Amino acid sequence: MKKIITISREFGSGGRTIAKEAAQRLGYAFYDKDLIEKIAEESGLSREYIEAHGEHAPGRTYFGYAFVGRDATGNSVGDYLWKVQRDIIEDLAEKGNCVIVGRCADYILRKRTDCLHVFIHADMEKKKERIVKLYGETGASPEKRLKEKNKTRAMNYKYYTDRTWGMAGSYHVSLDSGLLGEERCVDLIVGLAKDL
Amino acid sequence: MKKIITISREFGSGGRTIAKEAAQRLGYAFYDKDLIEKIAEESGLSREYIEAHGEHAPGRTYFGYAFVGRDATGNSVGDYLWKVQRDIIEDLAEKGNCVIVGRCADYILRKRTDCLHVFIHADMEKKKERIVKLYGETGASPEKRLKEKNKTRAMNYKYYTDRTWGMAGSYHVSLDSGLLGEERCVDLIVGLAKDL
Repeated sequence: MKKIITISREFGSGGRTIAKEAAQRLGYAFYDKDLIEKIAEESGLSREYIEAHGEHAPGRTYFGYAFVGRDATGNSVGDYLWKVQRDIIEDLAEKGNCVIVGRCADYILRKRTDCLHVFIHADMEKKKERIVKLYGETGASPEKRLKEKNKTRAMNYKYYTDRTWGMAGSYHVSLDSGLLGEERCVDLIVGLAKDL
Repeated sequence: MKKIITISREFGSGGRTIAKEAAQRLGYAFYDKDLIEKIAEESGLSREYIEAHGEHAPGRTYFGYAFVGRDATGNSVGDYLWKVQRDIIEDLAEKGNCVIVGRCADYILRKRTDCLHVFIHADMEKKKERIVKLYGETGASPEKRLKEKNKTRAMNYKYYTDRTWGMAGSYHVSLDSGLLGEERCVDLIVGLAKDL
């Protein structure tokens, strides 16, 4: 039985939905937006700030970020947020039985042996279909929206973990939700969490 | 039902053994050393040459390779071997119902819809245990042997496909055989091949 499931996912892959369903089926706590609120409470940073920057610390303003907004010790607001977030994830894992989505949780909890680390991805066509269905059309093409958001996730992950985002070796299981479908992904994750 | 399973794997992960077992359970043809012999027959290149260079075209002599041994059209022996190998894999896929191990088959067959592309990996400790048990100790440390061989696989893959080896997005399923165990990996692959 694995007590903690971390689910990392490409934007548009349905990974968050899969994570939520897996948590329900396992009777595990689910941390995503709730986690953001918890971070906000404990860090004193505004919720709006965290929602905008929580997974996008270096983001498109990478160079600006590196040189402005640092405190006397040289830490940026993003670095501070990272540390708060890391501590909270470690605490949640200590409490056990939970599914944590995103936020480099796979890396933060890499030394624990009671985790199942999962990555969910899908091909471009499936991701395009999904975001247009869920969020509608915007000024930017679906492909551009996907590329930008996933590039930002990759940059953030690299910045804080020094790992390449999406390498199979960082996870115990990686699944193509486009080919497998969401239900089968949930079944596999729940089955492995119980068996291992 | 997926007719073709490609299995890419880190050296030391047991991916070849998993592939062979999956092929037996599915009643599919299995291509690995046989494929090398077939390449040898059709290309006229010696079997020894192919075993040494088939998955290691640029290899440790990358720069030497790039400038020597080219024919009048600028193709190296490695480039020629790549083309022969690609044609054979395409032919095998046309015949159907097979498991193909390594040799960039995931990339070569990426446009087909009747394939399940799998990547098998494991953590360093598990891979070390496995190669020492299977192949014994040598002058070099197990870690050094693993790093060299897997680095060569990654370089070869990059050279011919322009993709990063081991990215989850290149496969439908990636599994950590160290955590899951070989039997569970076989079960999952056979189950998905039948279901999808």
